[in-house]
Amino acid sequence: MTEKTAARPATRRGPYAKSAQRRAEIVASATAVFAARGYRGGSLREIAKQLDLSLTSVVHHFPSKSELLVAVLENADSASIDSFESDSQGKGVVYAVLRYVRRNLERQEMLRLLALMAAEASAPDHPAHEWFRDRYERVVTAFTTAVRRDQDLGRISNRRHPELIAAALVAMWDGLQLQWLIDPRRDLMAAVSAGLEDLLGAPAVG
Amino acid sequence: MTEKTAARPATRRGPYAKSAQRRAEIVASATAVFAARGYRGGSLREIAKQLDLSLTSVVHHFPSKSELLVAVLENADSASIDSFESDSQGKGVVYAVLRYVRRNLERQEMLRLLALMAAEASAPDHPAHEWFRDRYERVVTAFTTAVRRDQDLGRISNRRHPELIAAALVAMWDGLQLQWLIDPRRDLMAAVSAGLEDLLGAPAVG
Repeated sequence: MTEKTAARPATRRGPYAKSAQRRAEIVASATAVFAARGYRGGSLREIAKQLDLSLTSVVHHFPSKSELLVAVLENADSASIDSFESDSQGKGVVYAVLRYVRRNLERQEMLRLLALMAAEASAPDHPAHEWFRDRYERVVTAFTTAVRRDQDLGRISNRRHPELIAAALVAMWDGLQLQWLIDPRRDLMAAVSAGLEDLLGAPAVG
Repeated sequence: MTEKTAARPATRRGPYAKSAQRRAEIVASATAVFAARGYRGGSLREIAKQLDLSLTSVVHHFPSKSELLVAVLENADSASIDSFESDSQGKGVVYAVLRYVRRNLERQEMLRLLALMAAEASAPDHPAHEWFRDRYERVVTAFTTAVRRDQDLGRISNRRHPELIAAALVAMWDGLQLQWLIDPRRDLMAAVSAGLEDLLGAPAVG
């Protein structure tokens, strides 16, 4: 939401800019609260309290807790997928994934929140359930496109259907990130590098 | 805990059996409550209420919420690792993993709980943090042993250090399971099969 406003500089003045800033503050507070208590354990009241705001003021910007959660998730996630797409187009999947992972090393708490929310929201009655189903579809599709392109260019092996590779890659990455969140002594970059090599394979000779 | 009692048939009478049964009931109720609200959102009071017990009675069996959580996790997890070890010894990693995954298809809610708890407990101040760190170490070690054995027997490729393969395998599996929990239309068995083949590789010829 803040990004949309930022893209329209004409409106970044007076009450509009103030409102965008307030929304960003609420999203930041909600990120911390949901990371600490999960979505179900976190409350709008606590999020408001952290900012010294009234509940009414928070509800003015985000009428429901679920709308606020979606804003938190969009904020955590969307920029990364965009840069993955342009990176992989220019320099291939391996480069794009490693760059993405390296960036993630700097935002441990955000990753913890995404992992927590994904697990919570796997339950069909969770308000972010659809969001995560769509998110994984979007991510796996982006990876599939990138893998297919690399196969066509002869950068990697084409022994396996790109969608199966993409799903396995996203899965391995999620899992290695979780292992690293649990034990940061693990070398995430080395683990992802080795796994990428095995899943993507060397290009066929000839 | 119930398993220990079950292994000592002489004590499965009178107050002992009753106490073991009560503990098992509390663990089952806690499993449901933690799965729905996370550990931090769940309370001993709610767990007691579900069973029509007093809080005092729950506390008599589990003096703290964190002790109860560990009992829940042990109950969810330990039997599976044991059978993985004997399966992989007899018939190799691929067979053992696929059998494990197939069993997991029947216990979606338990997997959801484990995924949720692993994400929550990745935070260093979480009461199950050590448990999960140890758990991943135990699982990766068991997989490393199994991969090394298969390499020695020429069942799989030996181009990569067994520990790196083991960590990637556990990660991919965790991630594919999460994708399946979020969208059960995905074919978990097919995805794991393909990923296993790529990560383990065919044995070197000759």
